[in-house]
Amino acid sequence: MEADRTPEEEAAAVDLRRDGAAALEWAASYLDRVGELPVLAQVRPGEIRAKLPPSPPERGEPFAAVLRDLDELLLPGLTHWQSPRFFGYFAVTASEPGILAELLAATLNNVGILWRTSPALTELELHVLDWLAQLLGLPDGWHGHIEDTASTSTLAALVAARHVTGRNVVVCSEHAHSSVDKAARMLGMELRKVPSDNEFRMRVDAMELDGAAAVVATVGTTSMTSVDPVRAIAERCRAAGTWLHVDAAYAGSAWVCPELRWTQDGVELADSLVVNAHKWLLTPMDCSCLWTSRPDEFRSAFSLVPEYLRTSEDAYALSEFGPALGRRFRALKLWAVLRCYGREGLQRVIREHLRLAELFESWVRAEPGWQIAAPRHLSLVCFRLDGPDERNEELLARVNAGGEIFLSHTRLHDRFVLRLAIGNARTTEADVRRAWDVLRQEAERC
Amino acid sequence: MEADRTPEEEAAAVDLRRDGAAALEWAASYLDRVGELPVLAQVRPGEIRAKLPPSPPERGEPFAAVLRDLDELLLPGLTHWQSPRFFGYFAVTASEPGILAELLAATLNNVGILWRTSPALTELELHVLDWLAQLLGLPDGWHGHIEDTASTSTLAALVAARHVTGRNVVVCSEHAHSSVDKAARMLGMELRKVPSDNEFRMRVDAMELDGAAAVVATVGTTSMTSVDPVRAIAERCRAAGTWLHVDAAYAGSAWVCPELRWTQDGVELADSLVVNAHKWLLTPMDCSCLWTSRPDEFRSAFSLVPEYLRTSEDAYALSEFGPALGRRFRALKLWAVLRCYGREGLQRVIREHLRLAELFESWVRAEPGWQIAAPRHLSLVCFRLDGPDERNEELLARVNAGGEIFLSHTRLHDRFVLRLAIGNARTTEADVRRAWDVLRQEAERC
Repeated sequence: MEADRTPEEEAAAVDLRRDGAAALEWAASYLDRVGELPVLAQVRPGEIRAKLPPSPPERGEPFAAVLRDLDELLLPGLTHWQSPRFFGYFAVTASEPGILAELLAATLNNVGILWRTSPALTELELHVLDWLAQLLGLPDGWHGHIEDTASTSTLAALVAARHVTGRNVVVCSEHAHSSVDKAARMLGMELRKVPSDNEFRMRVDAMELDGAAAVVATVGTTSMTSVDPVRAIAERCRAAGTWLHVDAAYAGSAWVCPELRWTQDGVELADSLVVNAHKWLLTPMDCSCLWTSRPDEFRSAFSLVPEYLRTSEDAYALSEFGPALGRRFRALKLWAVLRCYGREGLQRVIREHLRLAELFESWVRAEPGWQIAAPRHLSLVCFRLDGPDERNEELLARVNAGGEIFLSHTRLHDRFVLRLAIGNARTTEADVRRAWDVLRQEAERC
Repeated sequence: MEADRTPEEEAAAVDLRRDGAAALEWAASYLDRVGELPVLAQVRPGEIRAKLPPSPPERGEPFAAVLRDLDELLLPGLTHWQSPRFFGYFAVTASEPGILAELLAATLNNVGILWRTSPALTELELHVLDWLAQLLGLPDGWHGHIEDTASTSTLAALVAARHVTGRNVVVCSEHAHSSVDKAARMLGMELRKVPSDNEFRMRVDAMELDGAAAVVATVGTTSMTSVDPVRAIAERCRAAGTWLHVDAAYAGSAWVCPELRWTQDGVELADSLVVNAHKWLLTPMDCSCLWTSRPDEFRSAFSLVPEYLRTSEDAYALSEFGPALGRRFRALKLWAVLRCYGREGLQRVIREHLRLAELFESWVRAEPGWQIAAPRHLSLVCFRLDGPDERNEELLARVNAGGEIFLSHTRLHDRFVLRLAIGNARTTEADVRRAWDVLRQEAERC
């Protein structure tokens, strides 16, 4: 082998310019046509795997073969989260600046371990989390960093809470996200579920805080975006010496609009807070933003560096605020999104989604035989057909099998309820109108 | 606002084709010139943040401004992991197919929660982990999935071990990775460190397994790539009912070459295994591959779905094998890498790195005044100048400040030791020779 010829050059020669142009064109044309594809993948379990060769290739193949198989073999098995008519779970958007920043982050392939392994990665992450804190109206001085998902953010918060309080009980509402159950289980912590009031909010009077390491309060629950009374919960936590973690994974993004900050009341008293920029802030998966108002204590739960060995560089080590040691350059995409949208651009997206949700809600309210199933606070509408659960289940199955729109469901007051979540930046009023037309058409057949 | 004009279209219009072409050109030209940049960022803590505006913009900016600032403000603060003369920690490579797959994954923005939220994401992840298991010569039938980092993979394995055994002690060598300490601490498990022999291998005779939930055995430790005696450890674990987790985060990739599988002896008896494809398998961060030979028990530690509610679709839910609920489409990049390199291409890269490490080792051995500090097993060479630690510390500081090459260090037998890690696919013999020249030049000044 010649000295100046790398093994990579001798392997399948994928050219970043030539093959990159093809990948970019595939990406752009995918986004052009994504609205025409069936939103929910219309395949059976195992169907995709059955099309793939049982073994990897012996010799390298051209990148064109990867693109071709992505198109022919994988595309039918993708659920199109980028579709303007994706209304399931919480709808999300990978915006153009976020997508391109991921290309750049993968190219740089920086691994944030210590500060020196990538000063810019570390400092940009701290910096854009400060920017985002300003946009959301959070208190000054909180320490923010990025985890992959809210599950990990909440896990980290509970680790910190147990470390700081020396207690082992987690308290949350019966409507808190399943990630709280999962984290408590992973950590071997006891979970205490609190009943909710008739608007699905945690009942502060029913909270038992003896031995409680942490309370997880939710702003915008997954089922129906109910908002726990954070201020009252925070006051109880303060009195009991209990850590307050606020899960605003979806709804926190709305705070970019001052008129929507009523859901933020009391959050300034939290010990930690999670907001997922990959949900309603136009950032591709994964970008879960975790702040703490008690950074030194939070860090002490994770740090393996004895205090007497600390250097000024260590002050920046983000691996001391969560489970992972290495981190990829996630900050780059959030930076690109905040730069290219600006405060006004983010507000415009959120406000338009609220307008569309309000519109859809008004149509449901005006239509005989349909009902709104929970108060609508933000861009999620919970609704159902009058009559038995079976009729609603059949409706949902028919609608999703049609492929034109995708919705998911929940159960409220033990009734099957449909959810229409607006959160994709490509969604227009015409898309929401189409969803309503499809729902009414299919309802006639149920 | 008109019905068919999305809020995104009204915000800063970033065009995926036009701005994407500029981003792609930036990426390609970065990789063309990365060898000329100072490998280790030559900045002081806080210097990068100080250059950034204290607040985010009010109005959206063009993507060109992001690219410009990446170049002017951030680049001086990046440590260039893609440089062919990055020899620190474990050197890594984001290869072209991996980079382009990340562009595609961000474009698709699929979120794997349940199978139906992206059947292709879920099934491809299972499938490429099977492919990789074949390439590495692992037993049939293991269940593989992807976590972000080995820290998370090991954390998940310890959660499973505690769940399955009902015990609370973790046992590992004194040379195990710090992520074991961190995971044990997060989980509230007791950690028992076992002394090592004179080749830095865990001493099986010194393992105390009473109450041990898990043993973490390491194949290729971070300091000096020592290899614990996995078979003997496995036999002790079997007898004690203890879970065996094997951390082969770096060295496991070498198993793609049959002649390097001597380090795999006994791994077939493991309960779980982690190999980081983002280390030595040309895949961009993050892609940590975690297999288990006991999938049902592993899943039972994480699953919140009661058995009687399981459907056939649930069998595929990868969120039941680790902390996170949502996952991004990481499998796409691993698939692209395995396709574009093939078995032969991967072997060529690994073998060339071993050849280069062997060459560098031979130069050190032949040079008076230098010494090899630990047996070289793979592509990492541990060495030092004769004489006191201070001289070696000064040498490392001078070398890294020069910017031409980057090395990191460790301590072995209480001596300061330099590490030269070969793992970047762009590294040529000329780069390794240059490193040796720089080291000898600087040594003359210490």
